[in-house]
Amino acid sequence: MKTIPVVENVLKLNDEVALLNRDRFRQAGVFVVNLIGAPGSGKTTLLGATLARLHNQLNAGVIVGDPATSRDGQRLGQYCDQVVQVNTGHGCHLDANQVRQALAQLNLDELELLIIENVGNLICPVGFDLGQHTKVGLFSVSEGDDKAAKHPHLVLTADLLLLNKMDLLPHVEFNIERFCEDISHLRSDVELLKHSVKNGDIDPWINWLINRMQEAALHES
Amino acid sequence: MKTIPVVENVLKLNDEVALLNRDRFRQAGVFVVNLIGAPGSGKTTLLGATLARLHNQLNAGVIVGDPATSRDGQRLGQYCDQVVQVNTGHGCHLDANQVRQALAQLNLDELELLIIENVGNLICPVGFDLGQHTKVGLFSVSEGDDKAAKHPHLVLTADLLLLNKMDLLPHVEFNIERFCEDISHLRSDVELLKHSVKNGDIDPWINWLINRMQEAALHES
Repeated sequence: MKTIPVVENVLKLNDEVALLNRDRFRQAGVFVVNLIGAPGSGKTTLLGATLARLHNQLNAGVIVGDPATSRDGQRLGQYCDQVVQVNTGHGCHLDANQVRQALAQLNLDELELLIIENVGNLICPVGFDLGQHTKVGLFSVSEGDDKAAKHPHLVLTADLLLLNKMDLLPHVEFNIERFCEDISHLRSDVELLKHSVKNGDIDPWINWLINRMQEAALHES
Repeated sequence: MKTIPVVENVLKLNDEVALLNRDRFRQAGVFVVNLIGAPGSGKTTLLGATLARLHNQLNAGVIVGDPATSRDGQRLGQYCDQVVQVNTGHGCHLDANQVRQALAQLNLDELELLIIENVGNLICPVGFDLGQHTKVGLFSVSEGDDKAAKHPHLVLTADLLLLNKMDLLPHVEFNIERFCEDISHLRSDVELLKHSVKNGDIDPWINWLINRMQEAALHES
């Protein structure tokens, strides 16, 4: 009698590859961020500003996921040499295997930081471990103050939440107290940093990132 | 020997239920819109304004999908009596069966218009037919001018594209020409209406909707 193999759990398979990625990252000594946010929340602009700021301090690379086009990859290519664009087509998130394949195009041993910009989507990317050290959820004030409450799985699993486009606050209806209350109803232990990447005030985010990298290095050494 | 049933194609199964929905809509004489847009593109605000505008002209109902909370349903309940909120949890789109189940809570025979506000997501909802008459894709200027190019499947399958939040144009970087060029590279036969729901200038959208309803009524009578 034939045994028919059945893939019972796509997430389980993903998690196995994520473990392999995590091992590779540890061996290469590279700190990896999985950045998740809605389309237009400002992920690529944040990464551009981050890479520009860290340019003289460390070697950073980027994997960027989009359903189509290589525009984000081209934008980020201005700021660093190691950029891989993954086009997912109908796919709504990056998975660990796509990241594993992208790694083949990076010289990981030269990097100290790798930022993975996930596909613009607040739902599907949340469930897929990529092997990252830290998961960052990005919201923006132009999306409305109900987005944390509507996307509890991201809030519950992120290591940091960012609220971007604070420069637009005078022009949109966004109740920051309500947004923060929604987050604290879901959990009390997550940090929220508010900034405007457009205005360049990303110091808290840069400091958080550097601290996390140092903690991870201490932990692994 | 046992026969093991395998669901080969989730989309095929979805399409079969969508056909049943379409039959029910036709029998009830209700025109159905599937509204797709990113989180925070302004779907619920558009629906509120649309329901308020059409209140005295026709009976409208709403099915609204979100991963969590009943906030959109509550917001839209101000404008019409027939509102069903579907919480999808980890689900990133509405499918035909969820709509079929939601219909059990509506008095379809009393409605002339049913608007389905899909889950905030520019990717996954595109592939799932709900049985609607028309599919509308909503973008907003605060998302950036690259979103049509990055989401070709929505652009290629929508019957109408809307560009919302035109009031924010002075405060964001958005090249309308580039956005329109991207759309026309994908297809030349889709209409794009620009508006600011916040400023109340939604006449072109209302006219388009009324015209489509009249065309559908003529077609089916």
